[in-house]
Amino acid sequence: MTRLLPLATAQLGPIARDEARPAVVRRLIALLEEAASRGAGLVIFPELALTTFFPRWWMEDPAEIDAFFETEMPSAETRPLFEAAARLGCGFHLGYAELAPDGRHFNTAILVDRDGRIVGKYRKIHLPGHADHQPWRPFQHLEKRYFQPGDLGFPVFEAFGGRIGMLICNDRRWPEAYRMLALAGAELIVLGYNTPRHYPPVPEHDHLQDFHNHLCMQAGAYQNGCWVVGVAKAGVEEGCELIAGSCVIAPTGEIRARATTAGDEVVFAEIDLDRVREIRAHIFDFAQHRRPETYGLLTEAGFHPTM
Amino acid sequence: MTRLLPLATAQLGPIARDEARPAVVRRLIALLEEAASRGAGLVIFPELALTTFFPRWWMEDPAEIDAFFETEMPSAETRPLFEAAARLGCGFHLGYAELAPDGRHFNTAILVDRDGRIVGKYRKIHLPGHADHQPWRPFQHLEKRYFQPGDLGFPVFEAFGGRIGMLICNDRRWPEAYRMLALAGAELIVLGYNTPRHYPPVPEHDHLQDFHNHLCMQAGAYQNGCWVVGVAKAGVEEGCELIAGSCVIAPTGEIRARATTAGDEVVFAEIDLDRVREIRAHIFDFAQHRRPETYGLLTEAGFHPTM
Repeated sequence: MTRLLPLATAQLGPIARDEARPAVVRRLIALLEEAASRGAGLVIFPELALTTFFPRWWMEDPAEIDAFFETEMPSAETRPLFEAAARLGCGFHLGYAELAPDGRHFNTAILVDRDGRIVGKYRKIHLPGHADHQPWRPFQHLEKRYFQPGDLGFPVFEAFGGRIGMLICNDRRWPEAYRMLALAGAELIVLGYNTPRHYPPVPEHDHLQDFHNHLCMQAGAYQNGCWVVGVAKAGVEEGCELIAGSCVIAPTGEIRARATTAGDEVVFAEIDLDRVREIRAHIFDFAQHRRPETYGLLTEAGFHPTM
Repeated sequence: MTRLLPLATAQLGPIARDEARPAVVRRLIALLEEAASRGAGLVIFPELALTTFFPRWWMEDPAEIDAFFETEMPSAETRPLFEAAARLGCGFHLGYAELAPDGRHFNTAILVDRDGRIVGKYRKIHLPGHADHQPWRPFQHLEKRYFQPGDLGFPVFEAFGGRIGMLICNDRRWPEAYRMLALAGAELIVLGYNTPRHYPPVPEHDHLQDFHNHLCMQAGAYQNGCWVVGVAKAGVEEGCELIAGSCVIAPTGEIRARATTAGDEVVFAEIDLDRVREIRAHIFDFAQHRRPETYGLLTEAGFHPTM
């Protein structure tokens, strides 16, 4: 059997700090149109796709911070993207900064169906970086300051003819995140990322950023027998280089398609959701082979090894 | 700081079904001597390193089955290996089939220090394959018939100047296994494997066996910031091809050294256990970034996704 889903990665090049939402939305719509013209029914945009990656700056003025956040979705400024989705019959995954009505801030992603309706939401759980000002860094990574950890768990949504889960950026480095989604039945995991090439605490690993990016996603795909689609905000943004390498990864862990620029770029791939069975009904048949009774430490709160 | 540990992989080529223990032990000693002559203080041998990979055959006679198992360690036949270790000042990791005094059967590995004393034992938890006779297969994979799941958890041992954990073969495909050891403080994970090139249920993946082998171990190393050493029984054994690719993997996920034959082969590498901090004190700082309160499903017994 086959269950085909034509999709596309929509990698974004840099977004300037002063680039207004309408201009960004126009870029997103152009990518959506290109993807739809090639037959895509689902387009994956990156993390925080409506603004520059603002956690690189220390800010104290709440108004300045909140200007990077969305208080409603769609809003007047983002509605044209939803309308384009409905017009084109092409859904999308979009990351953005969410300011909830109760004042909480999240690093969020949504799944929007072919009618332009939101059918799923995820809030990033593994926030990287730090909460304090560290002036020694050439740029900050203040996700622990500007966001709270996601409170929606790892939900899986029935959509696009399959079961879809979402992760966001640093989540993709954590095997627990993929496994949670796979245990909940995910056949396709979509995610976006903003990953600086330079990691100030351990700069001697900068040359490994692309390798680590693909290693984690390929292992996540294979070890959970699911498709993984990872999409970058890439290129030199406000003086900070972000890695590219957006890709579609099969349940075998093989990279099926990938971007080859560091700018706005659509990569199309038709995937077969039924290929999940090749792995998950055999080598990673969870019911047959997992041993959850031996995994106690994994969920032990506050347990940390001595170093 | 550096904490150097000179070690070696001791890949084994095929062991014939009728090859007697003393002949195998002589091969192991030759590899130990070669490794020690190059400065190794620890040699890693494969899984089930004393016999052919007998789970490929359906057997019903308990005496025939038990002939592949060790009832004591060391025994008269294996003692020369322990004596060689003490003489050379070179410890080892060895996999073998264990028949416990109470009649239980395990797929086991031990860690033996430079004095030739056993300082750690692990019993394989993730048993692959099947328990029933499946004559349609060109060869069986009866680990679920011949072994019980390990009952020792995922222990970590203070030895060789560091903290060492062990896995066995199929364990290395499961991210939970690496994580359990890393949470218990492991800095180095050693393991052996017998992996047929041909996987009868999904033969269309046979060409990916080497890729999957390294993908899992490299991800396990990087995502846990520890060294991983994986050692194969390799080559065409009783008509069944086993993959090779024994290797030493750094906490960055990079392959530091690897075997380039499918036979008996020593590969030497000096590793620095203090490099664990490069990863585990930063990008994978568990205390800072893990969210165990969101991982409930991971330890839920009997939970299996719908397919």
